[in-house]
Amino acid sequence: MDDPGRRRRERSDTRRAEGFSDAVFAISITLLVLDLKPPAVQAGELRAGLLQEWPAYLAYVTSFLYIAVVWLAHEDVFGHIRWMDRGLHWANLGILFTTAVMPFPTAVVSDAIRRHDPVDGRAAVVLYAVAGLMLCASWLVFLHALRRRPWLLEEGVGTGFLDRMATRIRIAFVLYPTAAVLGHLAGPPVALLLFFALPVVNGGLYWLGVVARRT
Amino acid sequence: MDDPGRRRRERSDTRRAEGFSDAVFAISITLLVLDLKPPAVQAGELRAGLLQEWPAYLAYVTSFLYIAVVWLAHEDVFGHIRWMDRGLHWANLGILFTTAVMPFPTAVVSDAIRRHDPVDGRAAVVLYAVAGLMLCASWLVFLHALRRRPWLLEEGVGTGFLDRMATRIRIAFVLYPTAAVLGHLAGPPVALLLFFALPVVNGGLYWLGVVARRT
Amino acid sequence: MDDPGRRRRERSDTRRAEGFSDAVFAISITLLVLDLKPPAVQAGELRAGLLQEWPAYLAYVTSFLYIAVVWLAHEDVFGHIRWMDRGLHWANLGILFTTAVMPFPTAVVSDAIRRHDPVDGRAAVVLYAVAGLMLCASWLVFLHALRRRPWLLEEGVGTGFLDRMATRIRIAFVLYPTAAVLGHLAGPPVALLLFFALPVVNGGLYWLGVVARRT
Amino acid sequence: MDDPGRRRRERSDTRRAEGFSDAVFAISITLLVLDLKPPAVQAGELRAGLLQEWPAYLAYVTSFLYIAVVWLAHEDVFGHIRWMDRGLHWANLGILFTTAVMPFPTAVVSDAIRRHDPVDGRAAVVLYAVAGLMLCASWLVFLHALRRRPWLLEEGVGTGFLDRMATRIRIAFVLYPTAAVLGHLAGPPVALLLFFALPVVNGGLYWLGVVARRT
Repeated sequence: MDDPGRRRRERSDTRRAEGFSDAVFAISITLLVLDLKPPAVQAGELRAGLLQEWPAYLAYVTSFLYIAVVWLAHEDVFGHIRWMDRGLHWANLGILFTTAVMPFPTAVVSDAIRRHDPVDGRAAVVLYAVAGLMLCASWLVFLHALRRRPWLLEEGVGTGFLDRMATRIRIAFVLYPTAAVLGHLAGPPVALLLFFALPVVNGGLYWLGVVARRT
Repeated sequence: MDDPGRRRRERSDTRRAEGFSDAVFAISITLLVLDLKPPAVQAGELRAGLLQEWPAYLAYVTSFLYIAVVWLAHEDVFGHIRWMDRGLHWANLGILFTTAVMPFPTAVVSDAIRRHDPVDGRAAVVLYAVAGLMLCASWLVFLHALRRRPWLLEEGVGTGFLDRMATRIRIAFVLYPTAAVLGHLAGPPVALLLFFALPVVNGGLYWLGVVARRT
Repeated sequence: MDDPGRRRRERSDTRRAEGFSDAVFAISITLLVLDLKPPAVQAGELRAGLLQEWPAYLAYVTSFLYIAVVWLAHEDVFGHIRWMDRGLHWANLGILFTTAVMPFPTAVVSDAIRRHDPVDGRAAVVLYAVAGLMLCASWLVFLHALRRRPWLLEEGVGTGFLDRMATRIRIAFVLYPTAAVLGHLAGPPVALLLFFALPVVNGGLYWLGVVARRT
Repeated sequence: MDDPGRRRRERSDTRRAEGFSDAVFAISITLLVLDLKPPAVQAGELRAGLLQEWPAYLAYVTSFLYIAVVWLAHEDVFGHIRWMDRGLHWANLGILFTTAVMPFPTAVVSDAIRRHDPVDGRAAVVLYAVAGLMLCASWLVFLHALRRRPWLLEEGVGTGFLDRMATRIRIAFVLYPTAAVLGHLAGPPVALLLFFALPVVNGGLYWLGVVARRT
C-alpha cells in the first residue's frame, strides 16, 4: 500500500463500478414488486383480499425507501471518488451484497405479520435487525477502506466527510438492537414499525450530515 | 434554497440518476413477461389454453406501452436538466416508485377479467385507477420540484415546457376517475378498455404537447 | 418531417436509448435461467430428472443465442446512428417489445416437447413462428424508419447497409412459415429443430451481410 | 483477419459491450436472492425453519462470490481493451452465457444437500463441476481470441498478462475434476465445501496474478 508507483498501476476509474452498482440497486428495488400478487381469494372477495395484503404493501414501501436511501448515499460518496483499486472494489461489492439481500428479511417480516404468531414475529424481528446491522457494517468497512486510500479521492476532497458519514451509521448500530429489544418487550408490531421507520431516520440523519457538511 | 453557494455545492450531474432510472424502467418493462406462462391445460388443449390467456397478453401490451410512454417522457425531460440536487433526486425516486409498482395493478386487472365476477372487476378497476393517479401525482411533484429549481436546467431552457407537460398530466387526473366511474356503470370491461387506452391517449397528448412546444 | 429546423429541435443523442435497450436485452437474456429449476423428483432420481429436462436446456441455449444475435445487430446499427427522434424511439421500443416477449413462446415450445402431444406441438410451433415473424417485422419497421431519416445517421454513413440488413430479415420471413409448415407435415420436433436453428442461420446471414458490406 | 483495412472498419468501441455485460452480471448476482424465501413452516417454527435453510444461504453467498470474482476479472481485462470486433463480441457473450447459468447448478447443489441422498448428491456435484469447467473454458476462449487480436488492446499493453490469466484458469481446470472425484470418495458434503471454496481460491489466484503482474 505504500508504493506510489503500484498505486498508480493498480487503479481504474469508477465508471464500471458505478454502472454495475446502479444495475444491482435498480434490480433489487424493482424485484420487490414480484412479492405483490393478485390475492388467491374466492369470487367477490378481491377487495377484502387486496386490503388484507397491507403488510406486503408496507414491506414494499419500506424496502423501496431503504434501497433508495442506500443508492442516494452511494451516488453521493462516489461523487467524491476518482479511482478504484482492488480493495475498494471488494468493499463496494460488500455493500451490494448486503443491499441485494434486504428483500429476503423484509419478506420474512411481512410474512410473520400475517401469521399472527408472537414467537415467529420475534424470530423475524431478529433476522431483520441482523440484516440491517450487516448493511451498516458493510458501509463502515467501505468508509474505512476509503479513509485509508485518500489518493483515490477527487482532488481537493478531504476525508472529513467520511468521518461524519460513519458517525451516522454508528447511530444505526445502536438503533437496530434497541428496536429488536423493544420488539421483544412490547411485541413484534412495535419492533416492525421501528424497523420500517429506520431507513427514513437513517436517511434523515444522513442528509442532515450532508447539509451540515455543505453549509 | 436561497443560498447560491450551497446550490452549487449540493448539486451533482444527472448521469447516475439517468442510468439508475433507465435500469429501473428496463426491469419493470421486462419483468412483465414473467406473467406470461405456458397454460396448465390437458393434453391436446394447448391451443385453446393459449387463446384463453388473452387478458394476460392485453395486460402485457398495456403495461409495456405505459412504461414506454413514461420512459420517453423521462428521457425528454432529463434532456433539459443539467444538475440534480437532493430534492430532485427524491422527486425522481417518486416516479420510479409509481412506475415500478404498475405491474401489480395490471396483474390484478388481468386476473379479474378471467374471474368473470362483476364485484371483483370493480375492485380491480379502482386499484388500477388509484395506481394511475399515483403515477400522475409523482410526475406533478417532479415537475413542480423542477420548476422551483430553474438553476438545475440546461442553459437557455425556459420553464414553460414544464407547465405544458403538467397540463397534459392534469387531463389524466380527470380521465382516470371518469374511467373508473364509467366502469362501475357500464361494467368492468368498459373501464378496463378505457384504462388500456389511457397510456396511448396519455402518450398522444404528451407528444402533441412536445410538437406544440417545438413548432 | 420536411422542416429542417424542427428536425434539429426534436432530436436527442442515442446515449439513453442505448443504455435502456442494453438493460432490456440483458434482463431478457438473464431471466431465461429462471426456467431452469432443480427437478422435483424422488430421492435418488436427481440424475435422471436432470437429464429429462433437456428441452429446457435447449430452449435456454436457443433463446440466449436469439437475443445475443439481436443485441449484436442492435449494437451494429446504433454504431451508425447519431441522433434519435420520436419516431425512431418508438421503432426501437418495437424491437424491445418483440425481443422481451421471446422467452414466452420458447417456454411454450419447451413445455410442448415434454408433453409428447402432436396437437399441442403444432400449436406451440405456430406460436413460435408468429413470435419470430413479429421480431423480424419490428426490425423491418425500424430499418424503414431509419431509411426515411438519413439526417439521424452519423456523418458519412450511407443508407445502403440498411437495405442489405432488410434483405436478410426478409429471408427469415420465408424461413419461419416454411419451418412451421414442415413442422405440421413432418412432426413438431422437426419444426422445433428448424426454429432452434433459425437464430443461428439468421445471425450467420446477418454477419455475412456485415462482411459483404465491409470488404 | 490479415487485412488491416478491414480490421479498422469492423471494430467498434467497448462501451456497449461493457454496459451490456455489467447489466447481465448485475442481474445474475441479484436474481440469486429470489431463491431465499420465507420458509413454509407451522406457526411458532419460523426460527427453526430459517436455520434449516442454511444450504440456501451458503449457495447464495457462494454464487455471489463467484459472480463477483468473474465481474472483477471482466472489469480488469476490459480495462486493457480498446476495440471490439465480431469474434471478441461472441467470446464475451460466451462468458456471459456461462456466468448467467451459474445460479442453476448452485440451486441444484443447495437442493441436494437438503435431500440427504448420497446418489443425488453425487449427481449435483457432477453438474456443478461441469458448469464450473464451462465457465473456465469460456474464459480461455476469450483470452485466446484476445491474444490473436493484439490490435484491439489499448496502446502500450502487451499480451503477457493474458498468458498469466490463462495459467490461473488452467489451475481451476484441474481443481474442479479433483473436487468432483474427492466428492465421490469422501461424500458430497466434502465436494460441496471444495466447490464453495473454489471461487475464493480462483479469485485469490487471479489477484495474485494481478499483483505479480503489477509489481
